[in-house]
Amino acid sequence: MYPVAPLNRALSSAIQARIDNKTKPLGALGDLETLALRLGQIQLQQVSDPLAICHPTMLVFAGDHGIANAGVSIAPSEVTTQMVLNFVAGGAAINVFCRQLGWQLKVVDCGILAPLDHPQVISQRLGAGTRPFHQVPAMGRAQVEQGFALARELVRAQLADGCNLLAFGEMGIGNTSAAAAIMAALTGLPVAECVGRGTGVDDAIFARKVALISEALALHQPDRHDPVGVLAAVGGFEIVQLTGAILAAAEAGVPVLVDGFIVTVAALCAVRLAPGVRDYLIFAHQSQEQGHRLLLEALDARPLLQLGMRLGEGSGAALALPLLEAAVNFYNQMASFAEAGVDNVVETPRDAARVDG
Amino acid sequence: MYPVAPLNRALSSAIQARIDNKTKPLGALGDLETLALRLGQIQLQQVSDPLAICHPTMLVFAGDHGIANAGVSIAPSEVTTQMVLNFVAGGAAINVFCRQLGWQLKVVDCGILAPLDHPQVISQRLGAGTRPFHQVPAMGRAQVEQGFALARELVRAQLADGCNLLAFGEMGIGNTSAAAAIMAALTGLPVAECVGRGTGVDDAIFARKVALISEALALHQPDRHDPVGVLAAVGGFEIVQLTGAILAAAEAGVPVLVDGFIVTVAALCAVRLAPGVRDYLIFAHQSQEQGHRLLLEALDARPLLQLGMRLGEGSGAALALPLLEAAVNFYNQMASFAEAGVDNVVETPRDAARVDG
Repeated sequence: MYPVAPLNRALSSAIQARIDNKTKPLGALGDLETLALRLGQIQLQQVSDPLAICHPTMLVFAGDHGIANAGVSIAPSEVTTQMVLNFVAGGAAINVFCRQLGWQLKVVDCGILAPLDHPQVISQRLGAGTRPFHQVPAMGRAQVEQGFALARELVRAQLADGCNLLAFGEMGIGNTSAAAAIMAALTGLPVAECVGRGTGVDDAIFARKVALISEALALHQPDRHDPVGVLAAVGGFEIVQLTGAILAAAEAGVPVLVDGFIVTVAALCAVRLAPGVRDYLIFAHQSQEQGHRLLLEALDARPLLQLGMRLGEGSGAALALPLLEAAVNFYNQMASFAEAGVDNVVETPRDAARVDG
Repeated sequence: MYPVAPLNRALSSAIQARIDNKTKPLGALGDLETLALRLGQIQLQQVSDPLAICHPTMLVFAGDHGIANAGVSIAPSEVTTQMVLNFVAGGAAINVFCRQLGWQLKVVDCGILAPLDHPQVISQRLGAGTRPFHQVPAMGRAQVEQGFALARELVRAQLADGCNLLAFGEMGIGNTSAAAAIMAALTGLPVAECVGRGTGVDDAIFARKVALISEALALHQPDRHDPVGVLAAVGGFEIVQLTGAILAAAEAGVPVLVDGFIVTVAALCAVRLAPGVRDYLIFAHQSQEQGHRLLLEALDARPLLQLGMRLGEGSGAALALPLLEAAVNFYNQMASFAEAGVDNVVETPRDAARVDG
């Protein structure tokens, strides 16, 4: 149903040997070596081909949430639309980082309160905000499937334009509640461990969030082996499209830089729908939120960055791009010991050694 | 003797207020906010001025070590020269990262075995390798002072060319032994905790390193309150010039991106000579070496990146530049709540809040 090709592991040892033969101690580039190997497994037909990152694209999905009216957030749903307008005006953090680092940024309305007639907003609306999931299912299964289809089409269009690296951001007042509910449903972890303290959420709001999510899960009894059903019961329009976009990228054999609690929940949905997706996920940033940490553990992920950010918008993924480019560039450009005329003092491959000490 | 100006903390709360008023939850950009505040304290005369990073420059200092012949390293001293040639040919990791990220890279011969008549190597030789410090002092105090003066002149030339951010790398077979000896002398920590297992250093070499450094410290009895004396006794020509360069940058009010065990030891020397230096140090990367961790603790430093690298050359500092640029850019470019027409739901400044959940 979600045809994700396995990685080309046949080349793994040849790629590793090429990395080991660069003028540096074995393993001395740490996580960049792991990245280069993974990108090689994804991209390379021959070990001597160059790695490449082309037209990296950041898609920010926005949606509103019925649950937001139930006192789980300190901001009203109107802020979702205000921030979408900030994105298209270029004033948000994600704009700044995308301009700096060479990401193409696109903003998608998955179902905010009211449509925005703006040429820079891609309209893929599944509704005018979800229904309040503590009372009724957030949406129908057909809306989930429709969201997957729209996201797949959007991803395919980016790839057809030459993009070979995707990242995703999100905006949606109330979406941490939806994400925590999905996480609790899929992992079976206690709701209180999935709900972030966030910031600004005081004890009363925290308790209310936990209570409403627990109510919702008791009401809908979503089946943890049915991520589509979980998304319909307690999801959000942007989380649905994030899940669909991640599935579509992996199906096309394109890596995804994952950052943020909400996007990581969508990644978990995608991996539960098609376990092969996991090989295409590169984790960008670990926030200090307990929920995000547990979620990363569930995905066996160790992110590249730990900068104490908790913004969403895809900001952490945006910032990780130079590290991927560094992995690509050292693989393509660094001299081997023979090319540089440097004595390779390491006799045994993968034996520990350093040149500088 | 080393006139380092204190930071302009008078603007701190105004800079923080400007950061807090950007369209993001309070504190949501984590370490980037800390960076922007620090750069503001260093650079700004008025809070509405833009931050800027101009002509970032990476100086790689190379030197050879008498101790290298005593069996503390798996590579011979010749590899220092081979790697310097690799740097000027553009084939090393630091070349790749500097090209990618916009660093100007310069290579300095502080005293490798034999001079290289190469137009791209800046010659600031203090000798043809240090003396074996387990038998005699590595160099004289006059050489340390000469090294400081040469490094100061070099740094001033970069700043005169418009550079306002410096980073440093190093190359020198045997220099982890010298750095560990300096660290032990300055901190009083046990030698075995300052010596890295490194990689390739087996139990026998490790034990020999610890024994030789302990012998050297017993022989020279360097005074921990006299960093110049410590450098003369057990230092290296490149470590001396690194120390001088860090002092010179701080004296000029220019921040330094610090990475790597050897450069961090030089930073400790500089801070011990002039405590005000600490405010100008931005720590780039934490390696997994025990010695580096303890050294960062001694400097009360929490680096931006933890990528498991252990290469030296300034590679971690090079990779941290996009994060400094992101701090500069969000400070300069992000819209405020009022500018973007986004409701600021945070009533109390520095009170915890988030817009997205």
